[in-house]
This record gives sequence, structure tokens and C-alpha cells, in this order.
Amino acid sequence: MERLFLDELKNHYGEEVCVSGFVDNIRNLQWVQFIVLRDEVGKVQITIEKSEEANKELVEIVNQLSVESTITVKGTLMENPKVKMGGMEIIPKEIKVTSENLGELPFNYKDITTVNLDTRLDYRYIDLRRENNILMFQVQSSFVEYMREYLYQNRFTEIHTPKFIGAASESGSEVFEVKYFDTKAYLAQSPQFYKQMALAAGLGRVFEVAPCFRAENSNTSRHATEFTSFDVEFAYIQDYNDVMALEEEMLTYALEKVKEKYGEKMKEVFDMDVVVPKLPFPKMRLSEIYQELEERYDYHVDDSEKNDLTTEAERLCYKLAKDKFDSEFLFVIDFPAEKRAFYHMRDEEGKLLGYDLIWRGVEITTGAQREHRYSEIVKNAKEKGLGEDVSFYLDFFKHGCPPHGGFAIGIDRLTMLLLGVPSVKEVQFLFRGPNRLTP
Amino acid sequence: MERLFLDELKNHYGEEVCVSGFVDNIRNLQWVQFIVLRDEVGKVQITIEKSEEANKELVEIVNQLSVESTITVKGTLMENPKVKMGGMEIIPKEIKVTSENLGELPFNYKDITTVNLDTRLDYRYIDLRRENNILMFQVQSSFVEYMREYLYQNRFTEIHTPKFIGAASESGSEVFEVKYFDTKAYLAQSPQFYKQMALAAGLGRVFEVAPCFRAENSNTSRHATEFTSFDVEFAYIQDYNDVMALEEEMLTYALEKVKEKYGEKMKEVFDMDVVVPKLPFPKMRLSEIYQELEERYDYHVDDSEKNDLTTEAERLCYKLAKDKFDSEFLFVIDFPAEKRAFYHMRDEEGKLLGYDLIWRGVEITTGAQREHRYSEIVKNAKEKGLGEDVSFYLDFFKHGCPPHGGFAIGIDRLTMLLLGVPSVKEVQFLFRGPNRLTP
Repeated sequence: MERLFLDELKNHYGEEVCVSGFVDNIRNLQWVQFIVLRDEVGKVQITIEKSEEANKELVEIVNQLSVESTITVKGTLMENPKVKMGGMEIIPKEIKVTSENLGELPFNYKDITTVNLDTRLDYRYIDLRRENNILMFQVQSSFVEYMREYLYQNRFTEIHTPKFIGAASESGSEVFEVKYFDTKAYLAQSPQFYKQMALAAGLGRVFEVAPCFRAENSNTSRHATEFTSFDVEFAYIQDYNDVMALEEEMLTYALEKVKEKYGEKMKEVFDMDVVVPKLPFPKMRLSEIYQELEERYDYHVDDSEKNDLTTEAERLCYKLAKDKFDSEFLFVIDFPAEKRAFYHMRDEEGKLLGYDLIWRGVEITTGAQREHRYSEIVKNAKEKGLGEDVSFYLDFFKHGCPPHGGFAIGIDRLTMLLLGVPSVKEVQFLFRGPNRLTP
Repeated sequence: MERLFLDELKNHYGEEVCVSGFVDNIRNLQWVQFIVLRDEVGKVQITIEKSEEANKELVEIVNQLSVESTITVKGTLMENPKVKMGGMEIIPKEIKVTSENLGELPFNYKDITTVNLDTRLDYRYIDLRRENNILMFQVQSSFVEYMREYLYQNRFTEIHTPKFIGAASESGSEVFEVKYFDTKAYLAQSPQFYKQMALAAGLGRVFEVAPCFRAENSNTSRHATEFTSFDVEFAYIQDYNDVMALEEEMLTYALEKVKEKYGEKMKEVFDMDVVVPKLPFPKMRLSEIYQELEERYDYHVDDSEKNDLTTEAERLCYKLAKDKFDSEFLFVIDFPAEKRAFYHMRDEEGKLLGYDLIWRGVEITTGAQREHRYSEIVKNAKEKGLGEDVSFYLDFFKHGCPPHGGFAIGIDRLTMLLLGVPSVKEVQFLFRGPNRLTP
């Protein structure tokens, strides 16, 4: 008999069913035993009447059973309005213990109010059992699925670029060094150079979902030494408006489908609403933003800081976007180029032909048209003091490379914002930071 | 006007169209100029009559144009049976050079008969321009897309496990070491331990597509220091037959859809047929295979070698599977456990409860039921001499972990076999080996 997921049960009243999962709870009363069974999508009550002669063996099994063991149950699914958990119960014929919980859990994962985060991370295989953590990874998986789906529909090709690189190219200081046989290698901080190479090679539209490595020795709620980046790059754009258009459409497509699949459950478990945005997303110049933040919210910063968004300004952009445009998203444009990477295209006045995208008060993307003209990219690299280490990259533009642009989204950050999770340590499957390499 | 992909043109005869791509070829004749334009899905001829007064400017542009530059062309699409390339041509109104090829290519990528592989890898951004390379990545992308699609439909969750690990756990000798602030980290050889952790945490069914790192100092056509692994693991199996069943269904689903999308083009470009397998795939015991290889093909090996498949036996399995079962696939079962990892479950006689899958004479997967019983996995680890370094992993099985199994497929190898590409160096986007870290 095939195992049913617990959210499929409601179509099988009166039938013999087979279910599997963890023992979430046991109540062993005088006349009856109740097991709450939990799988990755729900819970169900198993009811064993002790007085029934036929149940003798089952009663003995439940007497020996420990919470958090795994079991497989075969029995009849009954509708029972008195049962709070979905108005149903299973009357078992067979209970098979498939693995035993051998002792007390390292901590009570169901009530973490007094458990410190490091303990939870040390025992992440227990911490993840919490309903919101299971849901978090299901939502993240679907979000990425739908973003990919949008790209496939738009004829993008998924690529897998190397994580070993020969030179610490982009910015030497934050690069991890690897012992590589008799020499050294470095770990890629992003697939930027290589996704652009794919376009120089004629692949047209590419994306990659892969780990990036950054040797940042900082212990904040946003930074990890390793994270998963969703990288997009595509050719034959007119200008960076095409890049913004693709990103906003992709995100809207994914949010709509995530809402459809998980909207209710996300509301229930995280008390978060999925808001499907209206297209196009609003756009504002950096200078306009500071002006409005002053006028509307009396937020003042020194002129010297106005060449980028301060963290507080970023945060206020949530309010600004809501108040002014009824939007959770805001594209910020007209950044000065000197603050940005040398491969971003700039106009004659030195303005960046790119953008930041702010969602719920946090920057989730930097996107841009890239510099594809050989003479210009060589000049930009020189200006930033980049030499031999990037020469392999500059070569990509020597023999024809179409105009192109792209962006990258950190999927951990995306998940944090979508579900209101406060720290990257809680949103990564297994967080990696300067002081954490285990489990 | 929106850019059309070249394979979309046939629906737009007589219309104004806009196309973009690389200049594949130019013929500048006395009375007429022909450009062959190439994008990632096709080619089209652009025809400019020199005698037309209105074409004066265009003629000048084409006179200056170099092959492998990129252009955007607007014009009228005409049906023309005399044109061999698809029976159509574009009569342009506008040709815009979007990037210039600034000099002779490092090698002629269209005729590589005299070009050595290292030169091609040094200039991979040129090498990839060859039609078969572009198609190769499109096919690989779709194959992975469809495998994922099958898993999504079967309620799998995609996870992203860390590549930094604290201890060189699985087999110390082939692990890369990373300088990690004041300590050392290692690069994961596979997500095996962590995908199992996901099941111990209750995620039920998971997969991951991510780089794996192996410090093998060997220079063969099959080995790279970094490769992309498609890893699957799922809970509540009866035994390893469930693992084989999932894998064969997933592969069949993906092959069917790849054939539908790319079958014709793969035949044309690679002269390879996509054969959609029949379900279930045939299964043979290791001992039976050696017996049949002797009887059928007079292939003899010493008994001492019969506890695993020799490379030649693997190769002959293609013929055997075809002759005996009319199948390209063959599951091989009943391996002795001592040759396999400690986390594979074995029966009381020491036989592995797992399998190898051979496709077209090459092993593409090792799959198995995993040992989920704490006392057994601890015993297995001890037998292999594994100590402290795996203790974090052994903990995953202490507090309930459902019976489960899984497998991994290297997508580079899969692509090699699907398209008949002889070397992993040619199938990776950018090959990484002991002697290659660039570009």
C-alpha cells in the first residue's frame, strides 16, 4: 500500500490508508491511546481503543513508543468532527516502528524561548524539525523553482561555472584560499565573470543557482561565509531598463505562484502575507529618495553619505515605497559609478547604468547593464587598479560580445524577507560563518 | 520592436522583424552582400542588394564589418526557397553593430581538427561558440530542468547544503583544504551527510544540484576536481527497490522530454539518438553479469576482481543490456558491502542493499538504502576506522531517523553519455583539473 502524505488524507475517508512520519505526541490514557503523527506536510491523530481485544499488540507497541521515533501506520481513516486536528482520525490495524528515538532530545525544539541560538545550530537536525523551519525550506524551494520556471519559459540556459578560480580577482581581501595540489586556488565570490563569458560565447541568456564564498570576518545577522546566489545574465538588451523589467516580472511570477501554493500556510505559521506586486515596480533616483525621506520622515544625513543608501535609508524605503506607490518594492537608480564594480556600465556623466532593488526595506539585488566594449572595460579596470588578475576576463570582450546585463539575488535573504526570519543563521540550512563550520 | 529568436522567424514571413546575434559569415560580392547571422538557436541570411540607392549606408556598414562581431538587424523577412538556410532571408532596413570583433580569433573554432585541446580550453569563450557546444549546454540545462520537474511533482524539496565542512570526514586523502580565518576548513566531496540530515530533520524528500570537490590528482577523461552533482535522498522507503524505481522513472521522464525538445537537433548535430527507455530497467546480480560476460563475449577476469565491475566489464554491460534486454540501462545489484561506503545498508550476509546504474557502458550512479539504525551505523563507521570526524553525522540517527535511501548523478557524465562527448574536459563549462584553474 502506498504511503499517503498527510495533506492527501481528506480524499480518503473510510478507506484503508498507510501513513508515515514522526511521533509528535503520545497520550496514553486509561481507556485509549492517542498518537499524533507528523510528516512534512501535516499532522494526524491515531486512536487506539485499549478495550478492543484485537488491539492488544498495538497497545503494547504504543506503551514502548517514544516521542520523535518514526512509525508507519496502516489503518482506516475515519471522519471525526470531535478531533480538532483536521476532523479525522486513523484507527490502526498495524503500527510499525521504523526508527527509535534513543533518548531525550538535546533541547526542546518546540519551545525555544530559553534555548540559545548556538545550541539550536549545534543540533540543527533537531532544530529543523520545527514546523516553521520545514515550511521555510519548502517555500524557498518553490520560490526558486518558480523563478527558474520563468527563466526557462524565456529561453534561459542554466550553467554551472567553476568555484575554483586561479586568481583572487574581484577583490582580493575577501577571498578564500585553497591548497590546490602544489599551488593555490581561490573560491569564487560570484559567477559574475563566467556568466558574462557565457554571453561572449553566444549562449544568449543564462542563469546559475550556486554557492558563493566570501571571507568576511563579520558576525552580523546578514552575513555568511557561504550563501546561495541566484544569478541571471542576458544579452541583446537595449539598456538596464530591460534588466529591471526581467527581474520584476520574474519576481512577480514567483510570488504569485508561491502565494497560490503556500499563502495560507505562511499566514498561519509565520503570520506573513505574500503580496503579489503590481507591474512595473516604482523607480526613484537616489537623490530623490533622500529628498523625500527628508520631507516625509524628517530623515537627514550628511551630503557625504548621499552617494549610496545608508542602512537606515534602505529601511525607510519600505515605508516610502508603501506610502508613495503602495508597493513593497522600489528600484533605486542613478547611483554614482565610483562606488560600484568596474564591470558595470556608466553613462558619460559617471552615473551607473544600473540599480538596486529594495524589498521590504532591504536591498535584495544590484543589477546593471554591463560594460561590453573592450576599450571601456579595460579603462574601467585600470581605474580600479585591477591588473593582470582580470586580464583573462577582459579578453572575453575582444572578439565580439553582445550588449548585456544581469543581476543576482541571494536566496537566503529573499527567504528571510518573505517569511520575516530575522537572521541569516536561521534561514540557511546549515549556517556557515567565521566561527561556525559545524555540524 | 522585440528581438525574435531565429527559430521563431518562420511564423513571421512578410513582416518587419528584429533579430540579433553574431556575424557568422560575410560574402561581399560584386552586386550583393550576404551576412549569415547566428544566434543561440539558429542562423539566417541577410541580403543587401548593392544597386539599391537606399542601401548605400548599409553597404558601407557591411564593408567595415568583421566576422564574429555582434549586430542587430531590422528588416523584412522574405520567404525564398533558393536560400538553403531555412528558405528565407531578411532584407534589412537597419544594421546596428553592437560589438566589434577587434582582431583575428585565437583559433578557428569552426575547424578544430588541428587545434589542441589545451588551446581550446585556454580560449573557452571562443571554443564554446561552436554549434555543438551551445546545443550541449542547452540540452544539459533542459535535462536537469526535467529531472527537477519530476522531483517537484513528487514533492521533493530542493536544499542547499554547505560546501565548507569542519572535518575531512568521508575520506581524508582526497579533500581540499581551505584557509578559514585562523583555522582550516575543507570542501565537501558530496552533500551525502547533509541530505541525510535533512531527512533526520523531517524534510522527507530532498534533492540538491551543486558543485562537489575532489582532490584527485589524476588526469583522465572522466575526472575533474570540481563537478556538478545531482543528489537525491528520500524517506520512508521499503527497501532499495524504491530507490531504483524513483531513479528509473526520473531518468525516463527527463529523457522523454529531452527527446521531444531536442531529439532532432541532437541527431543532426551530434548524430546521437535519444532512446526513451522502457520501465522497469533490467536488473542483474554482479555474479550473473560476470557469468554472462564469459558465456556471451568470452570475457574472463580473475575471481579476485569479481567483487566489483572492472571498467571493461562496465563497458561490456552496454552490449549485454542491449543483447539481453534491449535496454541501454542496466542496474547491477549484490555488490559486496566491503567495497562501499559505511553509510550504505547491507543485509545479514554482507551484501550491499544498493546498486550501480550503468548507462551506455558507464556507471552513472551508485544508489542504496542508507543505514538509519544508530547501533548499526556506529558499528559500520568503526569497521571502516572512522572516528571523531564522523561523530556529528552519527548523531543524526540518535533521535529518530526514518528509513531512507538515495543516489547521486554527475550531470557532466550524464551529458557526455547523452551526446557522445568523449571527455569531461569538453563537457564542463570550464573544466577544472589538477593542472587547470583558468580561465
